Amino acid sequence: MKRRLFLTGAATIGSAALATPAISQDRKEWKFLSFWPKGLPGVWDEIEDFTKQVNTASGGRLNLKIYGAGELVPSLEIMDAVSGGSAEMGHAAPYYWKGKVPAAQFLAGMPFGMTTQEMNAWYRYGDGQAMADEVYGEMNCKFMLGGNTGVQMGGWFNKEINALSDFDGLKIRIPGLGGEVMKAAGANVMLVPGAEALSALSTGNIDAADWVGPYNDLAGGLYKAASYYYYPGWHEPTTVLDNFVNQQAWDSLDDDLKTILQQCSGALNERLLSGYVARNNQALATLVDKHGVELRRFNDDVLTGLGKLTVETVTAIADQDPLSRKVFDSILAFRKDAMQWSGLSELAYQQARALDYGDFG
Amino acid sequence: MKRRLFLTGAATIGSAALATPAISQDRKEWKFLSFWPKGLPGVWDEIEDFTKQVNTASGGRLNLKIYGAGELVPSLEIMDAVSGGSAEMGHAAPYYWKGKVPAAQFLAGMPFGMTTQEMNAWYRYGDGQAMADEVYGEMNCKFMLGGNTGVQMGGWFNKEINALSDFDGLKIRIPGLGGEVMKAAGANVMLVPGAEALSALSTGNIDAADWVGPYNDLAGGLYKAASYYYYPGWHEPTTVLDNFVNQQAWDSLDDDLKTILQQCSGALNERLLSGYVARNNQALATLVDKHGVELRRFNDDVLTGLGKLTVETVTAIADQDPLSRKVFDSILAFRKDAMQWSGLSELAYQQARALDYGDFG
Repeated sequence: MKRRLFLTGAATIGSAALATPAISQDRKEWKFLSFWPKGLPGVWDEIEDFTKQVNTASGGRLNLKIYGAGELVPSLEIMDAVSGGSAEMGHAAPYYWKGKVPAAQFLAGMPFGMTTQEMNAWYRYGDGQAMADEVYGEMNCKFMLGGNTGVQMGGWFNKEINALSDFDGLKIRIPGLGGEVMKAAGANVMLVPGAEALSALSTGNIDAADWVGPYNDLAGGLYKAASYYYYPGWHEPTTVLDNFVNQQAWDSLDDDLKTILQQCSGALNERLLSGYVARNNQALATLVDKHGVELRRFNDDVLTGLGKLTVETVTAIADQDPLSRKVFDSILAFRKDAMQWSGLSELAYQQARALDYGDFG
Repeated sequence: MKRRLFLTGAATIGSAALATPAISQDRKEWKFLSFWPKGLPGVWDEIEDFTKQVNTASGGRLNLKIYGAGELVPSLEIMDAVSGGSAEMGHAAPYYWKGKVPAAQFLAGMPFGMTTQEMNAWYRYGDGQAMADEVYGEMNCKFMLGGNTGVQMGGWFNKEINALSDFDGLKIRIPGLGGEVMKAAGANVMLVPGAEALSALSTGNIDAADWVGPYNDLAGGLYKAASYYYYPGWHEPTTVLDNFVNQQAWDSLDDDLKTILQQCSGALNERLLSGYVARNNQALATLVDKHGVELRRFNDDVLTGLGKLTVETVTAIADQDPLSRKVFDSILAFRKDAMQWSGLSELAYQQARALDYGDFG
């Protein structure tokens, strides 16, 4: 009798579950593959926190278990794992998938392209999400924004850059579209893994290295092996990170769990950027005050020359396939209006704030 | 018998609910009071969407019902309603509560203060959340970031501003700390409600009016009554919006619902800003191309003069009570480092991007 009562009770729960996803007894266990090594400053803590927020928000009905680079598969293979369904979810940056879908690299940002605020606006209220859906659809994945590093630095140099010709023959570690522009400037672009940039700089195997920005560069010790720290990061004014889900795994979710994943991704998108801003502030002060790093600004001639090479090089890359050109055109149209407004708002305001009106006391 | 079985089943669900919040049968119905009128462009759709996301993510266990300005209580009384528990949640901007806790106004941003990215960084990784917890704790509320308008414009003027002395005697509608600085510059600051700014400008009752930025100003028709649209928005480089919850209502939530509210607020914080960036882009183009609006930049002398008056005026206001001074000091310390990094990153990058290197084609 007791058993029958219990079963009846259980059946009641079961049929209610069909009507009301919130009280579903299903427990999904998902593998979440990080492209990044466990503990990578600025990224790892944030994405680990993201998985915990999802687990808590779902009351344990969706459990994401995070794995660092190489724990289950090597970094560059996490997309194959998620596309094929041996893992359900991954976190990386879109440009890592340009070998699969070339247009993916434009989703991450581009030299002389949009800022982070502009890029987020394009994704949320321009065509960005639709473009990403098309690109990631080719990899059998659902795309969500998953954070942003903000503006990067121009890199560490052991030679001064006073003219565009100073890049000629320079041995430099710089990936992506920025690397293509450097090649056009005559540089010898070297494929040195990030973790080996410090030793390659120390031994003179390379003359210069781009990494991320003050926070990661301080942690990586790059100041020990280079004389000058150049800005601005013309090649990576924003770097979008991606949160992607196997399409069939995504489709299997009830609306509440889809919403939880999207809202937690949205929160991650702001929080990861905020972390970089806060920590870059502190790390820059440490690099300059404690380690005596020499900051150098690329002069206007150098920047104008890099801009011209960027226009030629990046346009030629976009013209290599129709989807790249489609994404590129959407970005260019949005960028044109965005530059007008940013020029009157963020840029004009920061110029005003930098004037000499004394310090608050 | 059937009734007994049902009751037994219900009891089983009830005790499971205690152990497992995810299958709780509780349905919370909360009143969410918007400070803003129903339909206010840029804000209403976002906060209405926020309530829907919470309702969906919680599987209906937490239902937020949104009310526009004046539907239940007038805008300025929503904090009393939420503090006292007659409503559970509200959305406004921190400076509206300076009459209750003066320090609240600093939580919204300040003239010549931090940018939106910097402000978010202070909230997430500086002392911002702790400061807001203290301020909103005095109003019996839990504080969450709930969006940001980004940089505002300098306002609509029917007189040219070529020197600081041109503010002397100017009849201007400008609220908050910016208004205090205007008073120090000799302006006649008028308390005109935003909705009446257009008619006050048209009749000549005021010479100038600050409202928000291109998107809201276009919707409000302000271009019809003013000759010049000035930038940058030195007085509101960022405007934080608040999502606040009655403390006892907050404490009554299980961890999953707390997490859902926080994560949905985090997503709202980025999305509302992204909406302003995207729509300001388009609206600026419409104002200039279609309505022939004349954009004017405050010159460096004017901006430097406003900066000096800001340092004096805002510091004096912060010195009026210990909690304001505490929040102000935390902001100043964070701002100092942030300005260094932003100067090398967002500012230097946007300057580089504005150089003449030709257009992408």
